[in-house]
Amino acid sequence: MFHVLNNRCTDQLQIDYPIIQAPMAGGITTTELVATVSNAGGLGSIGAGYMTPEKMREQIKEVKRATTKPFHVNLFVPNDFTTTEEEIKVAHQQLQPIREMLHMNDEINVDLSTTQAAIQTFHDQINVIIEEKVPICSFTFGIPSKEIIHQLKAHGIILIGTATSVTEAIENEKAGMDLVVVQGSEAGGHRGGFHKEEEQQLIGLMALIPQVVDQVHIPVIAAGGIMDGRGLVASLSLGAQAVQMGTAFLTCPESGAHELYKEAILQADEDNTVVTRAFSGKYARGLRNQFIAQMQQNEKSLPDFPIQNALTKEIRAAASLQRNREFMSLWMGQNAMLAQKQTAHQFVDNVVAEARRVITTMSM
Amino acid sequence: MFHVLNNRCTDQLQIDYPIIQAPMAGGITTTELVATVSNAGGLGSIGAGYMTPEKMREQIKEVKRATTKPFHVNLFVPNDFTTTEEEIKVAHQQLQPIREMLHMNDEINVDLSTTQAAIQTFHDQINVIIEEKVPICSFTFGIPSKEIIHQLKAHGIILIGTATSVTEAIENEKAGMDLVVVQGSEAGGHRGGFHKEEEQQLIGLMALIPQVVDQVHIPVIAAGGIMDGRGLVASLSLGAQAVQMGTAFLTCPESGAHELYKEAILQADEDNTVVTRAFSGKYARGLRNQFIAQMQQNEKSLPDFPIQNALTKEIRAAASLQRNREFMSLWMGQNAMLAQKQTAHQFVDNVVAEARRVITTMSM
Repeated sequence: MFHVLNNRCTDQLQIDYPIIQAPMAGGITTTELVATVSNAGGLGSIGAGYMTPEKMREQIKEVKRATTKPFHVNLFVPNDFTTTEEEIKVAHQQLQPIREMLHMNDEINVDLSTTQAAIQTFHDQINVIIEEKVPICSFTFGIPSKEIIHQLKAHGIILIGTATSVTEAIENEKAGMDLVVVQGSEAGGHRGGFHKEEEQQLIGLMALIPQVVDQVHIPVIAAGGIMDGRGLVASLSLGAQAVQMGTAFLTCPESGAHELYKEAILQADEDNTVVTRAFSGKYARGLRNQFIAQMQQNEKSLPDFPIQNALTKEIRAAASLQRNREFMSLWMGQNAMLAQKQTAHQFVDNVVAEARRVITTMSM
Repeated sequence: MFHVLNNRCTDQLQIDYPIIQAPMAGGITTTELVATVSNAGGLGSIGAGYMTPEKMREQIKEVKRATTKPFHVNLFVPNDFTTTEEEIKVAHQQLQPIREMLHMNDEINVDLSTTQAAIQTFHDQINVIIEEKVPICSFTFGIPSKEIIHQLKAHGIILIGTATSVTEAIENEKAGMDLVVVQGSEAGGHRGGFHKEEEQQLIGLMALIPQVVDQVHIPVIAAGGIMDGRGLVASLSLGAQAVQMGTAFLTCPESGAHELYKEAILQADEDNTVVTRAFSGKYARGLRNQFIAQMQQNEKSLPDFPIQNALTKEIRAAASLQRNREFMSLWMGQNAMLAQKQTAHQFVDNVVAEARRVITTMSM
């Protein structure tokens, strides 16, 4: 019984349960969280998108000391971007009232990387993955070059792509990804796709999963608004072979999220999220707050990722320090009402137990 | 086995399978479609939102001759609306280039109802429901008054409300609805909720169903992007007790949809829908076309439903006659790639058979 919980995906990833902790970037995926999930039989994940290669290597080594089970590292595929001094000046002006509200000093420290530098960092990150023999690597915001895919595969590393549409899922399969995460409209955090953002549809998982599984042969991992055993069984019914959960792991004591951020999720009594470019220049789903409201009017003309992300970094840091959630990026999915405060190990156990109960009840 | 397919909801509605054909308005729910679905063991539904009480009574009588099984009628709860001559003038000006493109004559025939008239029609429709002893009645765009609910219940009529959020579902239960349809962001056609539209969240079913079932005691019917047995089982896993399917029935030969409209769904190779106020003044999901593109810029300032709906009615009719799908409202959900051309009876049979297969496979 429950063969559905042990399938091609769990075989490929060599995990006990088809549960992946989403590789949330920005300090949330502590070593304790990653290792606990892997030790519990799921797949722990390091969100390394914003990490330097050095920091990434350090955490990979830490995780390896904390678990002998598979874990995975997620990287952001760099996108071409350009900016002008004028664009940055305008963006700064828009942020100035918020800087003043937070009593930030006049000195603005912005580390504006270039496309070239981002590509170099990405290559260095790939080298760390290979040198540290990370078993599984996933990508958001794009598909790496043929050369990189070839190189990683030559080292036996399992590759997971990210798609927000059927077309993107097909492209991931064609490029050689071993599995693909399909991210529904329900998902918190950044939209992980890579087609022109204006054209990115926000497709709900009920529609997205079956359309994708009918078109690709690689295992599909469902992501977006899945919080418990019910969501796991629903995803499996639709043809997915595993789920990736973010918001659900974010409120675990092991996660590195700010206490205010955890509270914001745990206190939700109705979905109050919005998909916005305000914080990073790339569309992402988070709790509505004053920052989003103030930026809303000019949202479409804000600089692209990662420029806007760099420009708002100090503001977000200052807001965190001042415990002011109105100016923090509170990424979360549409399912916050189901969030609970439990350890990551308990959570994995509960999801599996509930999934078994749901399947048993349905087959009676 | 498969007790999950026969539950409190199917008991209440006295149907064999937890499958409801969505009450799509505008001539789609022909008597043949409604009766075939009911005769196949699902719940056939008349979308009477735009019907006169007389036309509605006529179809109810027809359906009763075509089936002895339960069927249901859906009504639109009238919302307060106001308009000014200036607003209508501006709206007409915006539509004028489209009227010219379609070679429409200069005479504009618009039947602009008033709130008072809409309320009167609604009361007359309610009387038809009672007089014709319609077993089940559902509501979109609002919850009827206490008096109407009391009156319908006194006649033993089962009531189904519509919600797009947890809050709306709770309000439906409190008002005395016997069941509630929860409409996910994936759904085609009009958003069925009733809270201020700006505040209406587009919540995916994967998130919406479990959050609602945790908060209400009445059976929940899932609607939005569900096209087959996989979607039915997924909805049941999440805690729903039935599904309501629109797009899937729209392409059946029995449906009254325009051939071009059916083709537009059957030819879809990726979700290309958008939620727009352009056609009716109320948000609805349909296929992107030239009309939506041309109206997009001023979309937010268009008159409210049903004013804008009345203003565009002639244009939609002319486009249909001219077989020009660029100016027709092609409502559809996010799952059009899964649409098939099969009779409504075959479709119901196939959904049930597939649901049984999915459950059996999962429990192995």
